[in-house]
Formats: sequence, structure tokens, C-alpha cells
Amino acid sequence: MSREGNEEVDPEFVSRLASYLGFNKERVQHLFEKSYLARNWGKYENLLRFDKEISHIERGTVLYEKDGSFEAIVGFPKIRRAMVLNPTIKKHFSGLEKVAVEEKMNGYNVRIAIAKDEILAITRSGYICPYTTQKAKEKLNLKFFEDFPELVLYGEMVGPDNPYVPKEIYDIESVEFYIFDIRKKNSGEPLPIKKRQEILEKYGFFQVRFFDEFPLETAAEEIEKIIRELGEIEHEGVVIKDPDMMLSPLKYTSSQSNCSDLRHAFKFYNETGRDYMLSRIVREGFQTVEWDEDETEFEERCMKLGKSILGPLRESIRTVKNGQRLYEEARIRVRDLKTAADFEGYLKRLGIDAIFEEPQPIGDEYRIVIKKINKSTNDKTHAILQGETW
Amino acid sequence: MSREGNEEVDPEFVSRLASYLGFNKERVQHLFEKSYLARNWGKYENLLRFDKEISHIERGTVLYEKDGSFEAIVGFPKIRRAMVLNPTIKKHFSGLEKVAVEEKMNGYNVRIAIAKDEILAITRSGYICPYTTQKAKEKLNLKFFEDFPELVLYGEMVGPDNPYVPKEIYDIESVEFYIFDIRKKNSGEPLPIKKRQEILEKYGFFQVRFFDEFPLETAAEEIEKIIRELGEIEHEGVVIKDPDMMLSPLKYTSSQSNCSDLRHAFKFYNETGRDYMLSRIVREGFQTVEWDEDETEFEERCMKLGKSILGPLRESIRTVKNGQRLYEEARIRVRDLKTAADFEGYLKRLGIDAIFEEPQPIGDEYRIVIKKINKSTNDKTHAILQGETW
Repeated sequence: MSREGNEEVDPEFVSRLASYLGFNKERVQHLFEKSYLARNWGKYENLLRFDKEISHIERGTVLYEKDGSFEAIVGFPKIRRAMVLNPTIKKHFSGLEKVAVEEKMNGYNVRIAIAKDEILAITRSGYICPYTTQKAKEKLNLKFFEDFPELVLYGEMVGPDNPYVPKEIYDIESVEFYIFDIRKKNSGEPLPIKKRQEILEKYGFFQVRFFDEFPLETAAEEIEKIIRELGEIEHEGVVIKDPDMMLSPLKYTSSQSNCSDLRHAFKFYNETGRDYMLSRIVREGFQTVEWDEDETEFEERCMKLGKSILGPLRESIRTVKNGQRLYEEARIRVRDLKTAADFEGYLKRLGIDAIFEEPQPIGDEYRIVIKKINKSTNDKTHAILQGETW
Repeated sequence: MSREGNEEVDPEFVSRLASYLGFNKERVQHLFEKSYLARNWGKYENLLRFDKEISHIERGTVLYEKDGSFEAIVGFPKIRRAMVLNPTIKKHFSGLEKVAVEEKMNGYNVRIAIAKDEILAITRSGYICPYTTQKAKEKLNLKFFEDFPELVLYGEMVGPDNPYVPKEIYDIESVEFYIFDIRKKNSGEPLPIKKRQEILEKYGFFQVRFFDEFPLETAAEEIEKIIRELGEIEHEGVVIKDPDMMLSPLKYTSSQSNCSDLRHAFKFYNETGRDYMLSRIVREGFQTVEWDEDETEFEERCMKLGKSILGPLRESIRTVKNGQRLYEEARIRVRDLKTAADFEGYLKRLGIDAIFEEPQPIGDEYRIVIKKINKSTNDKTHAILQGETW
């Protein structure tokens, strides 16, 4: 049975929830009515999710009943972006001696924890993804969750069999989970970096690459070097952290990552948000000024930007002109076809128009190609080519 | 005395206006309350303007009492844009044998007509611009308005002393008015092109360049040639018209014009609409596909696009980094300093933050440089360079 939005909620349950959240009952009722607070589907319907940030509760926070009260798996804190490394790092981390620098990987954000006696992979929005959950169960040392039921892994699912953000750049055959934070349930309090590293190592988890700690004074120039190296291998960028995890992190990305975002955005130019496109472009402007590039470097950057925009645009228009449909291709790899069927139902539920092709056996698993249809860009391009005006 | 929005309007006046428009009185009252229908300022307050398109009445339409009824100067009809020349022209003008092609100039749209015994220059939004009005009175053969009080000139104010869209590309010393349409008051009905040309010639008006009439079948390829030539001299593009002006026109622009728009947009990246930026970029994609460009041409287009975006972005960031403020420079040329003072008051009224510099004598006139401050991009850039996150 599915229940979602505008639903009747048991008044007694609302009352207990209100008391846990410190809200009044009318407010909780209102959150349900607006679907700002909603249930997951099917067998996960006892897991509530915050669909919006509400009074400092992160969007995507998951909430469920436990031992007569509630327990929360706190959403991903939004990481602010430095547009220039200097003076942003000094300003943001003022008071610290050193900052830690880790790689920001390009994958799919996922929280993994035990909730209601089951290990679950929770998306940024607070959904329980059946595919990611199954992969987490297969890939991770589950002993961790027995030993630390109060902790949550915050990580990135990366690799070519990631159906959301498929990337070949990490030399991963299928998918792996790279953990970047461990946080406590309810409070969301993160472990200091050293402590996190010790625990992750002990249980044999992959963790995001740790570059080093740098003095606040020289961090910007050290990070510039790292960003240039990461860019050359098409990696995304870095997250800059307080080693004690008291202050919130900052992120900064390579030009190659900005251009890669733009390539994807302009392939589906009628789907992607205008703000998304603009922000990537503006980052390029600040980077060329901060790095004080000469005319040769600047021209190269202009060329890369121009090609990242026009290349995919041209390809999409040509595709439609040739009578083909525009889609995004991704793939998954499963041991049991039931996982694929569950995932297909889940995407449908999310309103994503995806075609699952025939499963191809690969070892003792199946690989399934998924085509996500980009109807809006497809239709717009088709109409223009048929003589419609803009 | 100024009156604008949420005003008390004489019920008897509302009643007459409702009867003229064919609306009920409550609707007219509502239009005034919402300022969808508003008065001009000062001595023009008896001229009403439509601030929005209402039931097929074009936005910018100006309305005033005349001989016991009302008279309307109809707003600029929105001209649709062809994203590809073929098949759009054939589809849009189907049934015609030939289409006429005229130059689309890059200036400021203005309607000039006699209303309440005064010659007025009316902006796209229906404001009476005191500077443009004065220039029209100086530049145009006013006998036309005596002979044809029922006609309205639809034209473009172009040249370097145009304070809205200053352009040096037309070899005009100060400003001139180029007329592209003559329409009747009230109905907005346009004169056929030949008839318009005869009248404009007779009174010695400048009119936009007329290229030729082309058969529908070959128009797209002929226009492609024209667009390439116009692009080389940085001119904007063409308007394609039904010679009888029964069907609405279509417009199409050069790549150079798209890039010029982008240069302006990215100079003030935090002010310009995201849709404005995207549409210019997407036009480049369709043009390269329609013109079937080879890789050399494509790379050149990418480079031009990249530079049109990053060049002004870099310049703006550098300007702010050097402690200077971002502004748009324009200038006007007046015989009487009162015109400049009136124009300054008018811009203030419109909420535009502009600094008028000291008048410089030039012949028997004065040139005045105007700096329009772009506060939003200035402040955003400054904050980022001080270490604020995005």
C-alpha cells in the first residue's frame, strides 16, 4: 500500500511526533498536508522523510519510531562553495591552524545506516533506493552496523554501474562506496577526520582520497596545485575540512568538472535549470582571474567552454534531426533480477521515464542498460526543426 | 503631480473607458488597482499605458481621451523568432508567393505619433521618453503628422547618442530614427510595405534597409547569405515580412548579434535574465546545424562563443578586483539642458540608478555622459572576492 501526501495521519502519532520535534501539532499536520514531511513507499512506509528543509532540519532527513520515541538519520549538510580559494578559505576557517583536504568524488550521494533492523541506502532526498541498498549490502562490511548502530556512513556511490551518475574515471569495474563522513544519528554530529579514518580502515571501507593537512596560510596555493592535477585526470575537485569537523566544510572544483557539468546540461538544454548552467560558467570566470591566466591560457579556457556548450547542443539537435530520440544512458548490475524490477518500480514512482533493456548475463550477475528519456529537450528540438518559432 | 498605481479613479471615467474597451467596470477598476493599466507622469498623466498584455491589447498600448471617446496607439506586436530558416519561413508564410526581407536594426524601439496635439515618442512599455520625444521633434519632418494624424510611425532610434542601446556600427554621428512600420491608430493595422515606403520617402524619413522580395521556396538560402554579410559588419539581422502585412513578421539574427548580446549579458552576469542568456546560446546551436558547418567553422564558432562569455566576465571581475565600480556607459546630446534634466528625472522615476556627468559643449549642443550603475553584479562580485561563498 502506498501513502504519500495529503494523507490522513493518526492524531496520536502526530502528537508524539510534535513532541519529539518540539513543534505544535498543527504545524506537524501542516507539514504532512504540504508533503514537506512524507512517507517512503511500500515496505518502507514507516520511514518518514523531510522533503524540504524545515527549521534547521536538513532536507532529506529520515525519521522513524524507535523504542517509544523517534530516531533521525540527518540529511546531507549543504556544503558551501568557494568561488575563489583566497581569501575564502582564510575567512571561512579563521581561527584554525590547519585545514584538511579530501577529494570530492563525482558520484551519487548516499547515506547508509541501520534503521528498523535493516541496512538501508538513503538518497539525498531521503528516499530508500532499492538498487543502492542492495549494492551496499553486497559491498560493505556489515559488521560495522552491528558494532555502531548509532552511526551513519555518508558516502558516494561511484562507478559505471551507478545508474544516476555513471563515471568511468575512477578505474572501478562496477560500483563502489567511498565514504567521506561518519555522523551520529539524531544530532548529525560528525566524527573528527582521524577518528573516522581509523574506523573506516578497521572495517575495510573505501574512503575518499585524503591529500593532506595544510596551514591556513598556504592552503589556497596547495589546493590550486591539487585542483590542476585532479582536472588533468577529469576528477571533480576537493572538499576542504576542519580536521576536528567543528566548522562546516567548503568545496571547490576543477575547470574540467565545470565543463563536464555544462556538457551534460547543454545536451538536455530544455531540461536543465538556467541557474545550474550560469553558475558553472561564472566559476570559470573567477578561476581565470584568480589564477591570473595569460592570453594563451585564457583562449584555451574559452575554447573549452565554447566546446562544452556548443558540442552537446549540436549533437542533440543533429540526433533529433536524424529522427532519433534523445536519452541518457545508464546501467546497473544485479545478482537477482528482482533488484532490477524493484528499481524500475522505484524510478517510475519518482516520475522518471526510463526504459530497461533486456538483462545481459555477466559472470554470475546481469547487466541492464537503462535509457532515461529526455522528453522536454526532445520535443522542443523536434518542434523547432519542424518550423516552430522559439 | 504624479499618479501611479492603486489610485482612485473617477467612476464616470471608468465607466466610459469600460464601454470603449468592451470590458465591465469592475475589470477596468481591477486593471487600475493592479497597475496593469496606469497613467504616465506629470504633464503626460492623461495618457494611459497598458503595462501588461490584456485580452489581445498589446503591452505598451497608450490610450487617451479624444472627441468624447478614446484613441489608442497600439503597442509593438511581438515578432516571433525563427530558430531555423528552413522550414520555418515556408511554414509561417504558407500561402504567400513571396516574402520581403528588411534589416533588423539594433536600437531602441519607439513609436512616434501625435496625441493630444503633441508629437510624442513612446517607448515599448508605453512611457513617454522626454529625450526621445525631443530628438524626434528635431529629426523628423513634422508635416507628416499634420497630414496623417491617424498614423503612427514604428521605428528604431539608433546611433551613439541613444542612451538605451548605444551603437557605433551604423555610421551615424548622433542619433537617427529608422522607420520600419506605419500603423493606424486604434486598429494597429499596418500599411503594406510598398505604401509605407512611398509615404516615408515622400516625407524624407530614413527607413530600415529593404533587401528584396524572395520567392518562398528560395527565401531561406537568400536570407542565409544576407545574414552572413550582415554578421560580418556586426549588424543584427533581418525581419521577414508578408509584403501586404497581413501575416505577422518573423525575425532571424546573425551569430555576431547573439554573441554581442552575450557579451553584454555576461558583463552584468548577476543582472541579466538566465533565459536571455540561454536563448542566445541555443540559437548558435541551431545555426551551426542548419548551416551544416565543418569542424573548422564549428571550432571558430565555439571560440567566439567562449570569448563572448568569458571575456566580459573576466573584465567585470578584474574591474571589481581593482577597486572600481561596474557601470554601463551611455551618452545623450541635447540642445537644451532642460531636456537632459527631464530625462534624468524620467530615469529616476523608472528606478534606474544613473549618474549624469558634466555637460560637454559640442557645436551648439551639449553631450552628456551617463553612467548606469550595475549594483547587483558589482556587489556580488565584490562579496565573492572578499571570500563569500556562492
